[in-house]
Amino acid sequence: MPVPPVRIGLIGAGRIGASHATVIARRVPEATLTVVADPRPGAASELAEPLGARGETSVEALLASDDVDAVVIAASSVAHAELITAAAEAGKHVFSEKPAGMSLAEISAARSAAAAAGVALQVGFNRRFAREFVEAHEAIVAGRLGAVRQLRSLTRDPGRGPSDPDVVPPWTIFTQTLIHDFDTLNWLNPGAQAIDVVATADSLTSPGHPTLLDHATVVIRYDNGAIATAEASFAATYGYDVRGEVLGSEGMVTMGEGARSSLRVHDAAGRVAATSHSDTELLIDAYTGELAEFALAVQQGRAPSVTGDDAFAAFAIAQACIDSMTSGARAGVAR
Amino acid sequence: MPVPPVRIGLIGAGRIGASHATVIARRVPEATLTVVADPRPGAASELAEPLGARGETSVEALLASDDVDAVVIAASSVAHAELITAAAEAGKHVFSEKPAGMSLAEISAARSAAAAAGVALQVGFNRRFAREFVEAHEAIVAGRLGAVRQLRSLTRDPGRGPSDPDVVPPWTIFTQTLIHDFDTLNWLNPGAQAIDVVATADSLTSPGHPTLLDHATVVIRYDNGAIATAEASFAATYGYDVRGEVLGSEGMVTMGEGARSSLRVHDAAGRVAATSHSDTELLIDAYTGELAEFALAVQQGRAPSVTGDDAFAAFAIAQACIDSMTSGARAGVAR
Amino acid sequence: MPVPPVRIGLIGAGRIGASHATVIARRVPEATLTVVADPRPGAASELAEPLGARGETSVEALLASDDVDAVVIAASSVAHAELITAAAEAGKHVFSEKPAGMSLAEISAARSAAAAAGVALQVGFNRRFAREFVEAHEAIVAGRLGAVRQLRSLTRDPGRGPSDPDVVPPWTIFTQTLIHDFDTLNWLNPGAQAIDVVATADSLTSPGHPTLLDHATVVIRYDNGAIATAEASFAATYGYDVRGEVLGSEGMVTMGEGARSSLRVHDAAGRVAATSHSDTELLIDAYTGELAEFALAVQQGRAPSVTGDDAFAAFAIAQACIDSMTSGARAGVAR
Amino acid sequence: MPVPPVRIGLIGAGRIGASHATVIARRVPEATLTVVADPRPGAASELAEPLGARGETSVEALLASDDVDAVVIAASSVAHAELITAAAEAGKHVFSEKPAGMSLAEISAARSAAAAAGVALQVGFNRRFAREFVEAHEAIVAGRLGAVRQLRSLTRDPGRGPSDPDVVPPWTIFTQTLIHDFDTLNWLNPGAQAIDVVATADSLTSPGHPTLLDHATVVIRYDNGAIATAEASFAATYGYDVRGEVLGSEGMVTMGEGARSSLRVHDAAGRVAATSHSDTELLIDAYTGELAEFALAVQQGRAPSVTGDDAFAAFAIAQACIDSMTSGARAGVAR
Repeated sequence: MPVPPVRIGLIGAGRIGASHATVIARRVPEATLTVVADPRPGAASELAEPLGARGETSVEALLASDDVDAVVIAASSVAHAELITAAAEAGKHVFSEKPAGMSLAEISAARSAAAAAGVALQVGFNRRFAREFVEAHEAIVAGRLGAVRQLRSLTRDPGRGPSDPDVVPPWTIFTQTLIHDFDTLNWLNPGAQAIDVVATADSLTSPGHPTLLDHATVVIRYDNGAIATAEASFAATYGYDVRGEVLGSEGMVTMGEGARSSLRVHDAAGRVAATSHSDTELLIDAYTGELAEFALAVQQGRAPSVTGDDAFAAFAIAQACIDSMTSGARAGVAR
Repeated sequence: MPVPPVRIGLIGAGRIGASHATVIARRVPEATLTVVADPRPGAASELAEPLGARGETSVEALLASDDVDAVVIAASSVAHAELITAAAEAGKHVFSEKPAGMSLAEISAARSAAAAAGVALQVGFNRRFAREFVEAHEAIVAGRLGAVRQLRSLTRDPGRGPSDPDVVPPWTIFTQTLIHDFDTLNWLNPGAQAIDVVATADSLTSPGHPTLLDHATVVIRYDNGAIATAEASFAATYGYDVRGEVLGSEGMVTMGEGARSSLRVHDAAGRVAATSHSDTELLIDAYTGELAEFALAVQQGRAPSVTGDDAFAAFAIAQACIDSMTSGARAGVAR
Repeated sequence: MPVPPVRIGLIGAGRIGASHATVIARRVPEATLTVVADPRPGAASELAEPLGARGETSVEALLASDDVDAVVIAASSVAHAELITAAAEAGKHVFSEKPAGMSLAEISAARSAAAAAGVALQVGFNRRFAREFVEAHEAIVAGRLGAVRQLRSLTRDPGRGPSDPDVVPPWTIFTQTLIHDFDTLNWLNPGAQAIDVVATADSLTSPGHPTLLDHATVVIRYDNGAIATAEASFAATYGYDVRGEVLGSEGMVTMGEGARSSLRVHDAAGRVAATSHSDTELLIDAYTGELAEFALAVQQGRAPSVTGDDAFAAFAIAQACIDSMTSGARAGVAR
Repeated sequence: MPVPPVRIGLIGAGRIGASHATVIARRVPEATLTVVADPRPGAASELAEPLGARGETSVEALLASDDVDAVVIAASSVAHAELITAAAEAGKHVFSEKPAGMSLAEISAARSAAAAAGVALQVGFNRRFAREFVEAHEAIVAGRLGAVRQLRSLTRDPGRGPSDPDVVPPWTIFTQTLIHDFDTLNWLNPGAQAIDVVATADSLTSPGHPTLLDHATVVIRYDNGAIATAEASFAATYGYDVRGEVLGSEGMVTMGEGARSSLRVHDAAGRVAATSHSDTELLIDAYTGELAEFALAVQQGRAPSVTGDDAFAAFAIAQACIDSMTSGARAGVAR
């Protein structure tokens, strides 16, 4: 094997961190998991050891480790920007879960830190690696759809809404959920720049928590005339739902259909297709793809295909949504 | 309206007769229902009168009526051939439900009677008028599939099998059910002639009635080398199922998917498409199409697109199935 | 037949008028076409006579006819309101193509005229009679989706945009096209009232005609908290596209999938489903259903299931879109 | 990592060998590829070295290697049985591509050799690890379909038939292709035993090579009354096609739909889903699954879930097909 696998230190042993740890250790041959860090006693070791890695309770220890070439950040979103900067300053390449920060200033600073350190910085926009979205992007880039005119991207979380509405930070639906759709729309409208947005959102699942926005519909105007809609819900009883649609002057693509596999069960209820009820099931190949891309970029000494600029551009739309919700009017998108 | 509608007398006020009566009266402007005949007291009138027609208890009265140009036979299958002959001799054009008779000799005689009387004779092979099958046939005739090589046609009745197994005549699955598939396969393999068949069938729904064949799989060889499979079941809990498939040297077509409409309900069970549970629902447009074709052929003084020859050819395969079941071996198909 | 068919006079022998004439004459047994009126010399007769009706060049002649119980208005949209009023004053029941007028005042006046005359007034919102939408509505009314939260309705016209952009009146995309979606959304969110809208639209197909809005995305807020999106395009190369989606607290429904039939052709290009390229093909059963409902309502002396109030409510959203486009801001919906 | 990965020696660096090598090296963390053997000069090294393994030209060298715990046989089918025996005698666990031998006697001998040596023996029936088939099997075993009554399994190879018909051994369609379907049908009809078969096959792609059977349809009767159809073609222009269907007393399952992903491209051609054109694309997750199962079974010291008995049972049906083709009649299946 000419190139040794990239040695990964994972920060954060929560739900998505656990998925990433397993993917790195078992599905990405270009990477190997060496360390997991999590401040909760035992959490890191419990995840790391069965995967052949070691646990640490301190990020500092992880960043100081000689056997860590690159870090994957799956900690709380509020810590992302700071961790990116710390990792970059420690000379580690960085893959960060989205968003790359909680404000454009934070993301800008993190991006600068990575650039100054000369390390790779990739953000976890998973749809860039989901097969149907990749094929759509290729068709669009190849000109098969002509000029892009009308788009839709949708994310719905499974279940009946947040179990503890009090702990959901303000604007989560924009900065954490729709951020995926904003990046997807930017990516599927290549070369275009978002101009402004108008956001409509409401609290529908949790009476008594009027500030918990759990359903949102955002309309984005692009400088090539394209009009995009991004929709999110925190309460889809039928499962985790990720879909997209792009209408161009020459044709349309649709992505996502909800069926978990090609199995159809036919009985008195009709023809039934099972659906996926978690992102880590629905998107497992995309999670693998994004981490493989990160490892390959590090191995090859090149920038990853999803960058800090993409993180900034997507968050700029999220920020405009917050502005639009605050003012009730259309809000411009920062560049 | 340049051409007056064809005045139809319907023989048989049972389940399919009732469907045909309504279709003629309400969905086929080229036809008008004038008389219904059924020997059961009141049955004909009950069906006919709300549709603006009159009831008769005797077929003879119907055939003697001046206001009947053509008859639609929906009586018991054992009476079909005799009724065709009687109608033809009375100078009436004839649409008969399948099969056109209970033996090749009966069908041959009925066909001759119609020819001698110079009346149109059409048999109720409904798939010839189901949209997806029509489109498949057009694609095949246009050469889009190249040479036809491997075919499948399938019919499954809804439910859990015959409610009274004792009244199901022998070989019903071949002469009443698969006869549709045999005609479909002949039609979708244009110009080819069935050579021989091997039939496999069993009694699976009704313990104690070993002679009630309720599941059957038939393989037919054609003189162009094509190999066809026809499958039937009397017990599909999920609904009435009609499907087809043709593989050619240049491509394949599939027909039938089971969903009743494009509605999909997504809930905790997954993504659910409702299915059709009766032929008169699933095939309503095909039933309309076949009766419209019959009326048009009569109006235009031409042969219908489905003829007594087609009835003979399909029954020849059913007869070969009976022979194959009796001998346990492959059986030739009469021409 | 206990009840005689309703005798219909059709106003307008254009594209949709021709479709309605054929549907009335051939697919709706409760109705009969007696007169067609169109000012263009010969146009009415050419359409009417093969269908057993007579042509007139004057609407007055049609409205004065004794053999006309009810009129179907398929004339230019700018004449709808005036024609509704004239027909009502002549004592004729009225089915009008959408919109029922070009302003809320016009629609209000037309609605009052019908009420004063005691005649039925139905507006041509065809999705109310499209099978998958009917099934969706039934599921929603039955509570299968729980509380309605997020909706989408979409209409795309086939082709590459208006052949003559100069003749397209201003705001056509809202008043003529999206009006269908506005009614659909109102209907699928039963009991809720639209509060306000924000419209985003642009001219993308016809350089040099900046006022021709050919793509539009509208977000509507309802008083039950539901957020709806209506999308339209005048340029779908892949065909006429009508789809819907409703997310509720208990599940989701989707309607429309684009395939013309269940035929799938598999060849080197992949698996191909043909699409519908005209409304009169895609919606033929819905057109039949709406005209049958109209005839039945007249026969039964009851109000049709789609009323002048529905026409007003849908146009109120269209008007709010015009206001929103003019101001650039969210605009309230009149009640 | 508590258990070290199983060290795999791969025999055969052809098309499927190359796929298996990559899967072992990159997608199965429980296994590591150490050696590849292929008699063609350089072939083994060329495949092995980029994957971190070494090449050998002799099977003997591979079998004598200390760093090989288990072998994966992807050599010519005629060598399978002999290689299984040799590997077993060398104390290596064995995964063999199907068929496990070219006769029931060969397979029986190989099975005995593995049993005598106490090594695991797994055969490459990939559908056992394809998600939709796994889900179908689970539904059947859970009783969701009730009693199994009518089955179908289908394999079609992409393209236009063998490029060199002369090199295709006799009966290939039964022993190499349909063997997958025979195993699938046995597996999806749990506990049932095949009784007899009738095979129909022909040479349709290669005029002048009448003995090259390239299309086949086989009907199998099981001792629980179930009737199964297995179909194969060597010439599907639309791609590699693997499908299944099981009708039970309580419902039906269908597996396989042909679309490569959920992307749908809509343009003037209609709605197009791309198809897979190779087994190594369509079945990559199944190939991964079967090799992971093998490695896990070796690690855990247990029998794999697909055994030599399954290999024997599937080949017994293939042998009965040969007998049926030879005699023209139904042929019994050996147990």
